[in-house]
Amino acid sequence: MTDHILFTILDLVGTFAFAVSGAVAARHRRLDIFGVIAIAYVVACGGGILRDLSLGAVPPVGLSDWRYLALAVFAALLTMSVYPLVQRLSQPVQFFDALGLGFFAIYGAHKALLMTQNIEIAVLLGMLSAVGGGVLRDILLNRTPLILQKEIYASAALLGASFQVLGERLDWSMVWLPWAGIALCLCLRMVSLRYHWNLPES
Amino acid sequence: MTDHILFTILDLVGTFAFAVSGAVAARHRRLDIFGVIAIAYVVACGGGILRDLSLGAVPPVGLSDWRYLALAVFAALLTMSVYPLVQRLSQPVQFFDALGLGFFAIYGAHKALLMTQNIEIAVLLGMLSAVGGGVLRDILLNRTPLILQKEIYASAALLGASFQVLGERLDWSMVWLPWAGIALCLCLRMVSLRYHWNLPES
Amino acid sequence: MTDHILFTILDLVGTFAFAVSGAVAARHRRLDIFGVIAIAYVVACGGGILRDLSLGAVPPVGLSDWRYLALAVFAALLTMSVYPLVQRLSQPVQFFDALGLGFFAIYGAHKALLMTQNIEIAVLLGMLSAVGGGVLRDILLNRTPLILQKEIYASAALLGASFQVLGERLDWSMVWLPWAGIALCLCLRMVSLRYHWNLPES
Repeated sequence: MTDHILFTILDLVGTFAFAVSGAVAARHRRLDIFGVIAIAYVVACGGGILRDLSLGAVPPVGLSDWRYLALAVFAALLTMSVYPLVQRLSQPVQFFDALGLGFFAIYGAHKALLMTQNIEIAVLLGMLSAVGGGVLRDILLNRTPLILQKEIYASAALLGASFQVLGERLDWSMVWLPWAGIALCLCLRMVSLRYHWNLPES
Repeated sequence: MTDHILFTILDLVGTFAFAVSGAVAARHRRLDIFGVIAIAYVVACGGGILRDLSLGAVPPVGLSDWRYLALAVFAALLTMSVYPLVQRLSQPVQFFDALGLGFFAIYGAHKALLMTQNIEIAVLLGMLSAVGGGVLRDILLNRTPLILQKEIYASAALLGASFQVLGERLDWSMVWLPWAGIALCLCLRMVSLRYHWNLPES
Repeated sequence: MTDHILFTILDLVGTFAFAVSGAVAARHRRLDIFGVIAIAYVVACGGGILRDLSLGAVPPVGLSDWRYLALAVFAALLTMSVYPLVQRLSQPVQFFDALGLGFFAIYGAHKALLMTQNIEIAVLLGMLSAVGGGVLRDILLNRTPLILQKEIYASAALLGASFQVLGERLDWSMVWLPWAGIALCLCLRMVSLRYHWNLPES
């Protein structure tokens, strides 16, 4: 499997996970069908679109590649149709959100590094890819972004993106590097939720 | 009349309609003169600027072409000077907003299709041109965007943009195609407001 | 000293001033360490990033040049460590904010004029550079942007940017032009705060 195919898969899995998380949040607020699909799409593709605009990679793939829109719509419809089931899971939004966070931090860092060869841009845009969709969702739903609350969220994405950039610069094997980064980000996020870890107060 | 002139006129009429709708909303909130002009300009040009950034058409015409800024300022000053008259109209914001929605959905879809030849981008950016300014206004005024409330709003823009893209692909005559699309979008929006049509709940 | 070095210094001083103003505001809201650094960075670099995206200058220097991120992080850490001292100053946020406003209005107008030779873009993007970071901060902290309240804020940036553009077009000496523009913007802002000057109601 080439790197290109591997990273496209990572991006699509992250898109699906974020779309589910967005649809659950929007359904919880009782938005109409269009609202649920719109929020699912914004959460799933918003971070990547902000990243692509910053890289000058226009039009952003979230707009030009039909698979992203189709996946988001499919995830939103699926979520609505099995919503009673989803509700019985504990914290389904948080799990899918953490999953998307990991996949997008790694994919975003990889894409930005590939396009600019600039370490700082790769780390920052990896983090932006991961948190951007959620920030747009919170802005649209008119609430203070999760990222600014006392939780380890963007810091987990920052760690994952930094790990990926470090690994690519040191030429670690692509067979396991992205998966280790995703696991790192996902574990840190879920463990910090479970044990209520917070960053120190300012 | 060439297509280019026709579509420039559509864009300017949409700009004027949205600027009036923005100025009425801002005046209603009792912002100062600068605030009213700023909101009028954001509503009138925000959607087009987001579209142009996504297309890589920089600098966006909303910034580089003085006619857009001049129209928005003129519309804001006009609205302020005849505000008592405007207030007596029932729902003036909603009518001008629906008008702008139709003109921008058609113009945005046309411009994006012309530049990318990609159907999905044309439909999505047509809708974004139409709803983007209003979403920015709602974010700036710190309220939940109209687009997410239980109303047929973005769906009307989506229908208009899809109709325009379909028509251009099937080579329908440009003499009536954009006007039919605008009428379709405007009617759907106004009728849904009149009869309180909503999309089904999720 | 070449113009290039002069304007880089203006940009970095503005970045530092805005980062301090953002950090003080975030610390006041008791965000965690990451939140304070994030808001400091958004206030310091957000306006410039919006300007660069509008100019097609990608990736934006706020992302690609490590000095901006480093300055913002340094300003945030410094602010947190001497916060009790900062609190005793009257209105520290407002002073640093007004300083950043002046530096960024002048630098943004200069950069946009240099890149596009378009007077309208230069004035608008000078103003956007100056107010963009603060607007993003207010959106993230979920409050109505300062710019829309009844105060002379964006108008001061507009005056500074217009003065700089006028001066460059008339070939006034770069030795004093930017400093006069910064002083003009800073004075207008501080005097209007002191004497509660407002723009007329709409």
